[in-house]
Amino acid sequence: MTKKKSNTNNYQIPKTMKAWVLGGPHEMKLVEKKVPEPGQSEVLVKVGAIAVCHTDIEVLHHGHPAMIEGKIPFNKDFTMGHEYMGTVVKTGENVDEWQPGDRIAVEVHAGCGRCAKCREGMYTSCHNYSYRSKGHRANGFTTDGGFAEYAINNINTLVAVPDHLSDEVATLTVTAGTAMYGLDVLGGLVAGQSIAVAGGGPIGLMFIALAKALGAAPVIISEPRPDRREMAKHLGADFLIDPLAEDPVEKVRDLTKGKGVDFSVEASGVPIVVNQILHMTNRGGKVCLAAFANGLTPTDLAYVVSNNIYMFGIRGEGNSAVRRAASLLEQKRFDPSPLHTHTFPLEEADKAVSYAENQTDGAIKVVVKMN
Amino acid sequence: MTKKKSNTNNYQIPKTMKAWVLGGPHEMKLVEKKVPEPGQSEVLVKVGAIAVCHTDIEVLHHGHPAMIEGKIPFNKDFTMGHEYMGTVVKTGENVDEWQPGDRIAVEVHAGCGRCAKCREGMYTSCHNYSYRSKGHRANGFTTDGGFAEYAINNINTLVAVPDHLSDEVATLTVTAGTAMYGLDVLGGLVAGQSIAVAGGGPIGLMFIALAKALGAAPVIISEPRPDRREMAKHLGADFLIDPLAEDPVEKVRDLTKGKGVDFSVEASGVPIVVNQILHMTNRGGKVCLAAFANGLTPTDLAYVVSNNIYMFGIRGEGNSAVRRAASLLEQKRFDPSPLHTHTFPLEEADKAVSYAENQTDGAIKVVVKMN
Amino acid sequence: MTKKKSNTNNYQIPKTMKAWVLGGPHEMKLVEKKVPEPGQSEVLVKVGAIAVCHTDIEVLHHGHPAMIEGKIPFNKDFTMGHEYMGTVVKTGENVDEWQPGDRIAVEVHAGCGRCAKCREGMYTSCHNYSYRSKGHRANGFTTDGGFAEYAINNINTLVAVPDHLSDEVATLTVTAGTAMYGLDVLGGLVAGQSIAVAGGGPIGLMFIALAKALGAAPVIISEPRPDRREMAKHLGADFLIDPLAEDPVEKVRDLTKGKGVDFSVEASGVPIVVNQILHMTNRGGKVCLAAFANGLTPTDLAYVVSNNIYMFGIRGEGNSAVRRAASLLEQKRFDPSPLHTHTFPLEEADKAVSYAENQTDGAIKVVVKMN
Amino acid sequence: MTKKKSNTNNYQIPKTMKAWVLGGPHEMKLVEKKVPEPGQSEVLVKVGAIAVCHTDIEVLHHGHPAMIEGKIPFNKDFTMGHEYMGTVVKTGENVDEWQPGDRIAVEVHAGCGRCAKCREGMYTSCHNYSYRSKGHRANGFTTDGGFAEYAINNINTLVAVPDHLSDEVATLTVTAGTAMYGLDVLGGLVAGQSIAVAGGGPIGLMFIALAKALGAAPVIISEPRPDRREMAKHLGADFLIDPLAEDPVEKVRDLTKGKGVDFSVEASGVPIVVNQILHMTNRGGKVCLAAFANGLTPTDLAYVVSNNIYMFGIRGEGNSAVRRAASLLEQKRFDPSPLHTHTFPLEEADKAVSYAENQTDGAIKVVVKMN
Repeated sequence: MTKKKSNTNNYQIPKTMKAWVLGGPHEMKLVEKKVPEPGQSEVLVKVGAIAVCHTDIEVLHHGHPAMIEGKIPFNKDFTMGHEYMGTVVKTGENVDEWQPGDRIAVEVHAGCGRCAKCREGMYTSCHNYSYRSKGHRANGFTTDGGFAEYAINNINTLVAVPDHLSDEVATLTVTAGTAMYGLDVLGGLVAGQSIAVAGGGPIGLMFIALAKALGAAPVIISEPRPDRREMAKHLGADFLIDPLAEDPVEKVRDLTKGKGVDFSVEASGVPIVVNQILHMTNRGGKVCLAAFANGLTPTDLAYVVSNNIYMFGIRGEGNSAVRRAASLLEQKRFDPSPLHTHTFPLEEADKAVSYAENQTDGAIKVVVKMN
Repeated sequence: MTKKKSNTNNYQIPKTMKAWVLGGPHEMKLVEKKVPEPGQSEVLVKVGAIAVCHTDIEVLHHGHPAMIEGKIPFNKDFTMGHEYMGTVVKTGENVDEWQPGDRIAVEVHAGCGRCAKCREGMYTSCHNYSYRSKGHRANGFTTDGGFAEYAINNINTLVAVPDHLSDEVATLTVTAGTAMYGLDVLGGLVAGQSIAVAGGGPIGLMFIALAKALGAAPVIISEPRPDRREMAKHLGADFLIDPLAEDPVEKVRDLTKGKGVDFSVEASGVPIVVNQILHMTNRGGKVCLAAFANGLTPTDLAYVVSNNIYMFGIRGEGNSAVRRAASLLEQKRFDPSPLHTHTFPLEEADKAVSYAENQTDGAIKVVVKMN
Repeated sequence: MTKKKSNTNNYQIPKTMKAWVLGGPHEMKLVEKKVPEPGQSEVLVKVGAIAVCHTDIEVLHHGHPAMIEGKIPFNKDFTMGHEYMGTVVKTGENVDEWQPGDRIAVEVHAGCGRCAKCREGMYTSCHNYSYRSKGHRANGFTTDGGFAEYAINNINTLVAVPDHLSDEVATLTVTAGTAMYGLDVLGGLVAGQSIAVAGGGPIGLMFIALAKALGAAPVIISEPRPDRREMAKHLGADFLIDPLAEDPVEKVRDLTKGKGVDFSVEASGVPIVVNQILHMTNRGGKVCLAAFANGLTPTDLAYVVSNNIYMFGIRGEGNSAVRRAASLLEQKRFDPSPLHTHTFPLEEADKAVSYAENQTDGAIKVVVKMN
Repeated sequence: MTKKKSNTNNYQIPKTMKAWVLGGPHEMKLVEKKVPEPGQSEVLVKVGAIAVCHTDIEVLHHGHPAMIEGKIPFNKDFTMGHEYMGTVVKTGENVDEWQPGDRIAVEVHAGCGRCAKCREGMYTSCHNYSYRSKGHRANGFTTDGGFAEYAINNINTLVAVPDHLSDEVATLTVTAGTAMYGLDVLGGLVAGQSIAVAGGGPIGLMFIALAKALGAAPVIISEPRPDRREMAKHLGADFLIDPLAEDPVEKVRDLTKGKGVDFSVEASGVPIVVNQILHMTNRGGKVCLAAFANGLTPTDLAYVVSNNIYMFGIRGEGNSAVRRAASLLEQKRFDPSPLHTHTFPLEEADKAVSYAENQTDGAIKVVVKMN
C-alpha cells in the first residue's frame, strides 16, 4: 500500500492568516498567525463562516474549560470558535476520505481514540479531554477553532454541506446535531410522542425543529420572549406557552390529558425551570438537560424517583448525530435559516460576539462571514 | 378449551382472617376481616412472613399515595405491607401457572395491562396507578397487602422461593429485585465496572450484594454507621468509606485513578449526598436514584450536563428483575440473611413497625412471621 | 370508586350480525352470527372497513396458527380478518378511555398481560398465544376478527383515526404500524441513514414510506414489478432497482460508496432474496426479516458473522408502533392511499380475498367497505 | 504540555527477534526479523505466551482476510497470532497509560478511530479494516501478531493480567472477552435467564463459563464429544446434551417448560446445528452466532420471523468486553485453566498449530510459551 501524500490540488495556502485570539480575560484580538499543517487523519479547512455560540462568550470571559481547570495555562494565542463551515483545502497524509474543494461543516469533538470512553463511542466524554498530545481535539475549546481564516480538523468531525445551504446557515449544522443527539439519548423514537422544550435559545429552537421533523406530536415550547415563541412556531411548535402568563406545568398537563409529555428538554439554563420541566414530564418519561445554570439547582428529585423519570445530561453532540442532522438539512426537512439574524465580516468578529452576548437588535445567531 | 375452575386442593380456607388495618393516622389495628377471593389471573396466598419496609411507615403516617392525592379516600379497612412471601392456597379461574402448595414471594406491582406504559412493559409507571377497577394492583399501596393471614396476588407478581431460604429471608426477595432493577436501568453490564453506593439501608446494601454477585469491581460504599459498613463488607463491598471521617468524593476518585465510578447509586435519601454521588461519577457515567428526601434538593446539574451524566429514578422493581434476583438467591450467589435482624409474631406487627422505624436495637430488616 | 357501567350511548346494537366464517379449508361463508359482548377492558367495534392481508389467505387455506398446531380444533364458526377500522359503539365495564362514537383502527395483538413476555412489553411474543381464557387476543387469528359487522377489541389495541383519512385508507394503519415496528427494532435512528427494502408488497412499501417519513437517506427498493417500483417511488424511494435487470447487491454497493446500507428489510418472502439483502448490508448493519418463505432458506451466515450483522425477525406490530404510525398518518407525513386499489361490499368479501390472492387487476390492498 | 518521550526503563530491546512468518500457503517458517518500533498510542510488548486459535489455522492455509480479498498481496513476511499476553517493554511517544513492566493481555482490534463505525464504538466493524495507513490494526490479521518474541499494540487493546494467572492461562483472556461480548450483544441481562450453547470448542466453553459466572440459569450445552461435555460441566453447565444420543431441541424444551431458552449461542460452525439452536430458542429470544460454516446454511427463517427471534453475528470481541472479562478472571469468578491442554516452546510453534488443528491428544487450547 503506497502512502498517499497530502494534497492541496490547486489551492494556494498562504504562510500566515488572520485569526482572532484571546487577549486578557474579556479581550479578543485580531492577529496574524501561522497557518497550521494538517497531520495524520486531518485536513486544513478554509473557514467560510462561523457562528457565535454562548459557550464562546464563556471562553472569552473565563478561558476554556482546560484553562480554567489549570490543566493548560491561559493561552493568549488561542483561537476560539466551533460553529463553523468551510472548504477543505489540504489533506493530511493518507487522507482520501475528503478532497480539496469539499464543502463541509464540523463537529466539535474528535476523541482521543485510545481511552475507554472513545473506544466505546462516547467521544464527547473522552478521558483525555484537553490532552492534545493524546489525540483529543475540541475545536475552539482545547484546540484552535474557527475565528480565523483557516482551521485544522480531524476527518472524523467533518460532514458534507449541501449546495442549497448558504455558508451562514450551514454554520448551524452543529447546533442542529446537538439537538439531534439530545433526541438520540432520549431514545430516538420520538415520532408520535409528545415533547416539551423549555427555552427558546438556538439549542431549544433546534430541538423544536428536529423533533417536529422526526414526527413528534405535539411539540410544545415554553418561552417568555414573544419573538422566540414565534420562531418556535415557525420551526414547528404546535403549542406555545408563555411561562410568565400561565403555569407551564398546568398547561402541558392540559395538552396531554393530564399525563405530561413523553420527552422534555431543559434548554433555558434557568434554575426554576428545571422543576417545571420535571413536572411537565409523564411518569416513566425522559428529560434531556441541554443547558445549565452554575451553582446548585433546587431539584424535585422525589418526583424523579416516584415517577421513574430518567434525566440525561448532554455535553454537545455525539453518536454521529451531526451527520444525521446534516442529512435532514440536505433533505430540507426543516429550515433553520430564520435563526440566523446578523452577519459581520471577520474583522468585526468582536462586534459579532457582542451582538450575540447582548442579544442586540433581537440577535439569535450572529455569524461571521469570511470574504 | 375447557375452563379451569379455581383450585384449593386440600387447603381449608377460613371465611375470616386476622389482618392489620390502618386506623386513624399513625394507628394500625388488628382486626378480623373477610378472606378475599382470587379472581381472573389471581391466586390467594397464605402469608408466611412479611418484612417492614420504610414505605410502610410512610403509609402508616400519611396514608398510601392514592389516598394522599385524594384519588381514594383514606381507608380505615386498608391492610398495608408489600414485602411478603407465603404459599399459594387457592387459584383463580383459568390459573394453571401456579398450584396450591407453591412457595412464593411477590413483586409489588401488577400493572393494569391496558395503558400505554403497561403495554410497553413499564408496569411500575402504570397510568392507571390506584385504579383497581382498571386492573392495577400494588400490594399494600393500592390494594390490600401482607400484614394479614391471607392476601390476593396477580400471578404476574409471583416468583418461586427455593427450599433453602427461610421464610424470613425470603421476604427480602423483592428488596433484592429492586436493586437488581436499578442495575438493569444502569445498563446491566456491571461486570468489571466500578460502582459506588451511598447509604447502607436495606436497598443500598442489596445494591452492594447484587453488584458484587454480578461481577462489579470495585464495589464501594459510603455510609456513616460502622455496623452498616461492616454489613456492606460482608455482602461484598471492596471499599468502605465513612463520609463523616473522610471526603467520600475524594476517596472514590483515589480508588478510580481520578476518574470516578462508572455507576453510582443514591440510596440514602439525604439531600447533601446527591452531589457527593454525582461528583463520584465518571464522565459519561450513570447514577441510579433509589431514595429521596422530600422537598427540593440542591443539585449540581451543571456537573451533570458538562459530564454527560445520566440519572435514573426508580420506583421499586420492574422488568422482571425480582424473578432474576430470586434466581441469584436460589443459586446462593449472595446471602442477604444478615439483613434480617428481628422477628415478631403477627400479633406484634405494630411493634415490628416501631422497631423498624426507630432502628431499635440495630434493627435493619424486621420481619413478622406467621405461626 | 364507583363502577362504570358499559355504555352504548345511542347506538342500537342488534342481536345478530352478518359475518364471514371459515367453512372447510379454502372456503369462507357469509352467515348470521351473534353480536358479541365487550367484557372488562373491551369495547364493541362497528367495523367500517377491512383490508385483506396475505396472512388472511393463509388462514383461509390452512386455518390459523393455533388451529394448525392443534391447540384449537379447526373452527368453522371462526371469523378472520385483522386489518380493520370502525367506530366504538359500546364500552365494557369500567372502560372510560374510549367512548361510543370514537373512530378507531386496531392493532392485532392484545397480550395476556400475565406471562413474562407480556409483562416485559413483548405482547406479540405472548406465551399464552392462542389461550383466550388467559386473556390473549389476536384479532382474526385466535379471536374473531373483522370480516363481520361487529368485532370485540381490547382497549389496548385501539388507535384513533383522524378525520381526514377515509375508512378504506384507515385500514392500512396496522400495516404502517408493522413497518414502524420494524424500524423500531432496527434501532429507530434511521434519520440520515441508508436503507434498502427488498419486496414491493404492502409491508415493503410501508417500510419505504415510513423510512422516508423519518428521514432515512437514501431509501432504496429492489422489486421486479415495474408498477410496484413506481409505487415505491411515489412513497419516497430515492432509488429503484429491478433485480431481474441488474445485480441488486452491486447496485446498492454503488449507491453507498461500496459500504452497503445501514439498515435493510427483507419483505419479499423469496428465499434467494435473503442473501441479496444480507450482502447489501453494511458491516455492523441491521436486517429486519419481515416476510418469509416456508421451509429452509439457504443463508450466508458466514457473512452475518464476519460482518457483525444483526438480523431481527418481526411478527407483526409491537411496542405501540401502530399508535406512532397513526400519528404520522394524522400529521400527513406520508400518503398510503395509492396502496388501496380495490373496494368491495361485505357481501363480496370472498371476491375481495380472491382479488388480493391473485393480484387481479394489479390489486395491492383490497378493502371490504361496510355500508 | 511537554511531550513525553518513549520509555524503555531498563529493558534491553534487541535489534532483531525470532518470529514465525507465513511461507507459501500451509507453510510457516521461523525467521529472524526486525523488532518493530512503537509509534503514537502504541507500546512494544515482549510476548510471554500465545495460544493457537482456529482462525490462525485459516490464515495459515488461506492467508488473512485482506490477503484473500486481494486488498493486500499475500505477505510472506507476515506474522500471525492474536491470542497472546506478555509484558510492556517500551512505550511510544506520549504514552503514560501503561509502563514498561506492566503485564498485559491484548484485544485483537484497534479500530482506525476515524471511520463512522469506530467513531460510534464498533471498532470490530471498522470501515478501514486492513488499512494500516489509516490507523486500523488487527493483531495477526492485518498487522503482525504474536508468534514472535515482540509485538506492537495500540494501547487501547491492552488489558491488565492479574498475578495469579499463569502466562498460559492469561492467553485465554481474549477468548473470554469474545464470549463476554457475545453476552453483551444478547443484552447482558443474563442473570436468572436460561441459555443454551451448541458446540464445546474454546469459544463455546467460554460462553458456558461466562454465562454461569454472570448468573444465567439454567446453563445448557449441546456437544457430541464426551470430554468436552465434561469440560462444560466443570465450567458451569447445569445440563449436558449429547445431540447424537437425544434430540437436543426436545431436551431443551423439556428443561424449560416447553418454552425454549431465553438466549442461545451457535458456537459449533456445523450447518445442521443452526436450526437446532433456533428451535431451542424461546419466542422473543435472542441467538448469538459466534461460529460459521462456509457456504450457505439452510436456515429456518420462518421460525425466526414468526417467533420474533433476533440473531446477532459477532466477529470477535468488542465494547471493551475483554477488559470486563479480565476483571472476572481477576476476581476468580471462573477458571478457564482446564481449557489449556498443551504447551510448546516458540521453536515448536508449527507443532503447536498442528496439535490444535488436529486436536491431537485431546488438545483444546495449545499454547506457545516463550522462554
